[in-house]
Parts: sequence; C-alpha cells; structure tokens
Amino acid sequence: MRMAELSRVSGVPVPTIKYYLREGLLPAGRLTPPNQASYDRSHTRRLTLIRALTDVGGMSIATARVVLSVIDDPDRTVRQKLGATISSLGDIQAGGVADGTNRADRADEEHVQATKTVDDLLERRGWRVEEASPARAAAADVLARLDRLGQHRAIAALDGYAEVAELAATTDLDVVAGIEDEDELVETALVGTVLGDALIVALRRLAQEHLSGNRYRTPPR
Amino acid sequence: MRMAELSRVSGVPVPTIKYYLREGLLPAGRLTPPNQASYDRSHTRRLTLIRALTDVGGMSIATARVVLSVIDDPDRTVRQKLGATISSLGDIQAGGVADGTNRADRADEEHVQATKTVDDLLERRGWRVEEASPARAAAADVLARLDRLGQHRAIAALDGYAEVAELAATTDLDVVAGIEDEDELVETALVGTVLGDALIVALRRLAQEHLSGNRYRTPPR
Repeated sequence: MRMAELSRVSGVPVPTIKYYLREGLLPAGRLTPPNQASYDRSHTRRLTLIRALTDVGGMSIATARVVLSVIDDPDRTVRQKLGATISSLGDIQAGGVADGTNRADRADEEHVQATKTVDDLLERRGWRVEEASPARAAAADVLARLDRLGQHRAIAALDGYAEVAELAATTDLDVVAGIEDEDELVETALVGTVLGDALIVALRRLAQEHLSGNRYRTPPR
Repeated sequence: MRMAELSRVSGVPVPTIKYYLREGLLPAGRLTPPNQASYDRSHTRRLTLIRALTDVGGMSIATARVVLSVIDDPDRTVRQKLGATISSLGDIQAGGVADGTNRADRADEEHVQATKTVDDLLERRGWRVEEASPARAAAADVLARLDRLGQHRAIAALDGYAEVAELAATTDLDVVAGIEDEDELVETALVGTVLGDALIVALRRLAQEHLSGNRYRTPPR
C-alpha cells in the first residue's frame, strides 16, 4: 500500500509517519517503480506498536527508538532483549522526570529511608532482584514522595500493594508461558508490560468506583 | 522562608517555582516588608504535590491546575471533589494522546468489540460504574490496541487483571477508610491514586524480575 493508505489503515497522520521514518522507528517501505515506497502489514503493525509505547506507555520517541532497536537486533539473545526492554521500562515509566530534578539527584534522608523500606519489603517477600534494578529506585522514589506528603497510611499499605504486584506478575508470566517463538515472546513481554500497566490502571479506577460506590453510595430510591 | 530556601528545601528550581506561581498552581507567598514574599510549609507541601501529579502522574501543568483548583474549592462537597479528581485521573493517565489521533476519534470495529469486552467483564464481576466513566473507555482502548497487535493471550488474561485491580482497589479503600477530615480524605485519594499507580507499576516490575528469575534463571554454580 501507499503511504496515504497506511495512514488511513493505522489512523496515524502522514506527517507523523514521515517523522517515524526519519527517526528510524519505522523501517522504510519497499521501493517500487516509479520510485514510490510501498508498505505492508508489517508497517501497520509497527505503527501500532510505536503508538502503544508512546501514547500509552508515555515513552519519548528517542526511548522508543532504543527499545525497538533492541528488540530488532538479531545479535542479542532473547534473555538480553527481555532484560534490556523491561529494565528500560522500569526506568522510564515509574517516576518520569521533567526538568532534571530527578530522583537520582536526591540522596536526601527520605530517599535513604525509602530505599531501606523497599529492601526490607524485598527481603520479607523473598523477591530476588538486581540491586541496580530501576524499579527498585522507582519504588523508593514513590515512597519518599508519599513520606514527604505525610501519606503514612499509604506507606503502611505497602505489603498490600506488593501482594497486588505479585498477582499481576503471576498473571504476566502466565501470559508469556508457552510462547516458543522468541520474537513473539519478546514483543508479548514488551507490549504486555506497557499496555498491561495501562490496563491495570484503568481497571483499578473501575474497581475503585464500584467499591467506593458500594461503601459510600446512597441507596436507590 | 524566602524563595531561595523554598527551592532548596523542595528541590524544585527557582524558575520552575516562579512558573507554578504564574500559572496559579502554587499560592502566592505572604508579602512581608520590604515587599518580599515569604513561604511556609504549606508551600513545600504543595510543591511536592504538584511534582507528584506532573512527574509521576504525567499530568500537564494545565491539568494539574484544574485538579488542584477542584480540591481547593471550598464550595464543593467531598463527594464532588473525589468524583472530579478521580474521574479526571482516569481520563488523563490511562491512554494519553500525542497528536489528536486519540481513542475518542476511533469508532472502528476493534473499539466497538473492545468496549463490549469491557462491558461483559463489568457485568461478570458485578462492578457498577458510570457508563461515561473515562476508565471504561481507557480499558477498551487498551484492549483494542492489544487486539490490533494480535496479543490474544493478554486479552484472554483480562479476568486475571480484573482480579489484580479489585485487590488494588480494596487496598486503596482500606487506606482511606477511617479518615474523617475531608480535605485529608480528598488529598489521600488523589495522591494514593497517582502515586499508587506508580508504586504498583514499580512493584510489578520487581515481582516480574523475581518470578521470571525463578522460572528462567540458570541455577547458581
């Protein structure tokens, strides 16, 4: 198909598609005479993936390019691909930063205490993770912010949220279990993590609405 | 304290503080002679809240201003404040948009099917939510994207993720249960929702790392 049709099918505007091509997120089309590019289903699929990472996952174009180049790299093992993508997701998503005052710059007392709180949790639950895991720092960052806001009730519920997370991760592992094709495994882990976050967030809102209605709603007339 | 100290204590750069003041997110300091503004703990606290909404929650300044003006409004009831803030969070966070090709513009077949899948889930679980709930559209948007990416395994795990969400929301309700002060209740719900999302995401990564290690890690030498 031509670019106009690729745009129509994918719902992504032509200038945006051209931008993705220039930035190397989307592979070039096949050149057909007279010098026109032709696109196929692999392009619509890649566009959907790019939009999932950027729109839903909140990734910058630069980060999406890095993640996509990792999963496209034929010289990496599936383990390396999984490690690199999921680790970068942990870094990007849980605690983004706007203007340089990020958590790495802040070695204040709340962060030291919060990191210890996370490590105690990891030990209590027997979770074995790398010390440099970005998600460990991200969790500590959230706890430090809660502490600064005086949200001690939320901090006290940490084990409850860990239980939630373990149930989520168990479900995640079930989703990828049994996938034998390595490219499919990596893409499923990536997409399942990014879109899974958004799905859990949306469903949490719906469950909150339902449960708070049950608890606080006035009875029907 | 003066603005320089407010910046030091909060970790937010002076130009950013001035921007928040201009945009009305941060209340002005108290004017003291000779014509200098003085700030107090309410300002450091508000800065921490603004950064939680924008850095962690990914809110734009415009949206943060709206959310903060709602929770500051003395004429709204606690119910209205809770409804307005949580509903706006559902809209903003679960499925942001970059350039106008958002889910509301897309009434394609996948979205119709995905909305039905969400509604079936709501009925199956007995969740009573408003039809216009932004989180309902956000969940459908994620399912439609998964469908377009051929991620049928993830879609099949929907009930598992709903279980995760219900456990999360039960924990959320426990956190706010028993708070009698209305301002505290609203702020706890807001902060607990925004930072809670980030906490769940970070803990999910840690649990994934642990569980996938258990399943795939080579045994120690």
